Amino acid sequence: MFRLIPREEKFFDFFKEAAGNILEGAKVLIRMTDEQGGDLQERWKQLEEFEHEGDKITHQIIRKLNRTFITPLDREDIHSLTVALDDVMDLIEAAAARMCLYKIKQSTEEARKLAQLILKSAEEIVKAVSNLERMDDVMEHCIEINRLENMADDVSREAIAGLFDSVHDPIDVIKWKEIYETMETATDRCEDVANIVESVALKNA
Amino acid sequence: MFRLIPREEKFFDFFKEAAGNILEGAKVLIRMTDEQGGDLQERWKQLEEFEHEGDKITHQIIRKLNRTFITPLDREDIHSLTVALDDVMDLIEAAAARMCLYKIKQSTEEARKLAQLILKSAEEIVKAVSNLERMDDVMEHCIEINRLENMADDVSREAIAGLFDSVHDPIDVIKWKEIYETMETATDRCEDVANIVESVALKNA
Amino acid sequence: MFRLIPREEKFFDFFKEAAGNILEGAKVLIRMTDEQGGDLQERWKQLEEFEHEGDKITHQIIRKLNRTFITPLDREDIHSLTVALDDVMDLIEAAAARMCLYKIKQSTEEARKLAQLILKSAEEIVKAVSNLERMDDVMEHCIEINRLENMADDVSREAIAGLFDSVHDPIDVIKWKEIYETMETATDRCEDVANIVESVALKNA
Repeated sequence: MFRLIPREEKFFDFFKEAAGNILEGAKVLIRMTDEQGGDLQERWKQLEEFEHEGDKITHQIIRKLNRTFITPLDREDIHSLTVALDDVMDLIEAAAARMCLYKIKQSTEEARKLAQLILKSAEEIVKAVSNLERMDDVMEHCIEINRLENMADDVSREAIAGLFDSVHDPIDVIKWKEIYETMETATDRCEDVANIVESVALKNA
Repeated sequence: MFRLIPREEKFFDFFKEAAGNILEGAKVLIRMTDEQGGDLQERWKQLEEFEHEGDKITHQIIRKLNRTFITPLDREDIHSLTVALDDVMDLIEAAAARMCLYKIKQSTEEARKLAQLILKSAEEIVKAVSNLERMDDVMEHCIEINRLENMADDVSREAIAGLFDSVHDPIDVIKWKEIYETMETATDRCEDVANIVESVALKNA
Repeated sequence: MFRLIPREEKFFDFFKEAAGNILEGAKVLIRMTDEQGGDLQERWKQLEEFEHEGDKITHQIIRKLNRTFITPLDREDIHSLTVALDDVMDLIEAAAARMCLYKIKQSTEEARKLAQLILKSAEEIVKAVSNLERMDDVMEHCIEINRLENMADDVSREAIAGLFDSVHDPIDVIKWKEIYETMETATDRCEDVANIVESVALKNA
């Protein structure tokens, strides 16, 4: 369709880039919970680079928002989705940071499960954000992200309760409780993305 | 008044339903902090059902939003109020879950006080949400919810400081600190509801 | 410029007042982390007064919003900025409260660093909010607040990891972890303010 003032569609590309970046980050986190210690530090560095990449995308979107006359979505929705995607990447890096800084020697089954739920949420974010431009099949991915967050909440609760039963050093309890909570918070931030996407889809229905 | 395209007013009924559901949940939480152990597991199951009921209401609202042409409030306000009400119910269930999963044998005076503040906040949410349709006397209930959140914050702070003085097993300190914080967070989520209702009332004043 | 219905500009004065109040609070927090115990209780009382002052400003803005016909910014933006500024003051007081309630005898280097980052963020908030009326040079202050939050996140992570290495009593670990997290959360709330200001600036660009 011909438009006198073309609508800037580049925003959707940026969102896809941010989502793809999150997905790559989630894959690194999986590797951190799979392997036996050793390379943790190396993986964390990778995640810090993904986080900086995320920051760069965020700044590009904000700059473009500043210079764009007609946006394809409301300006404040573009802004809040950008911030929410950035937060997901930050939380993935935060979980990795805690594993390193707390000198975790051996990962746990529960950490692996949580990393997998983060990965699945990241995959759904990629799909939801990719469909945003055509406003097509967005809702189902948002519902799935909500379901994954509920599952992560259950896993993290049981994992923390398990620490009280099986771990004897209170310091280790504190460390793992914090790691599980940080991973669970990553899925909360995914849910924030889903809620914003859902709200945008409803508004532009 | 006659309208060519009738405005869908069912949303207000849904909000009242979600608020009523929260109120019932808060009553169960009171019983959990009143009784001596025993039925905790049974009560938690009840709260899980309330939580699922809340999820159902949330999905009904989203579906109706999708199919409604003229909404009585801005679509994004209906959406964010729905999400906020759902969050309150989630947090009440989360507090109960922790009491069960951490195998708490005996409740405390402070847990009872916090449950009572959650109950009072729930009652104010029912009133605020019921008045939303007529935009009448909404503000005073929002102010009261803010006041109750401040009180819950004080109770939870003192309760946690008290743990450090009187509880000797660090594991028990960690457990109760988490339970108090979760209950306090429930009142934070009530405050989120109040802030959204307040904002909606201001916009539609 | 002549306007038939004058726009109420008093909101910007209120924002500046709230920001100035936060800055004064941040200065007291610095003193609490500088000194050796003793006056902590006295400082905390001061911060409670700043918090009440913040509440008063919040209520004045809400009341004025209710009685104002033409607002200089969207009503919901004025509301959410007001709530966000109030949250920053609350968190500064919350950090001070924990230092007192947990009977901290001696501050740490890390607490001092975090208090300094809070102070710098408060200074940037004052500048961002002061420039809001002319929508001038707002962005750079928002970016700086984001940078300071990242720094606070790093300091708090390292500080908590350091506790695990050097503090032997788990109760002391729990206390300081909570204090560092509360101070870090204060900078998160500063970032929320920055995000809202940024969004408002983009919308009114």
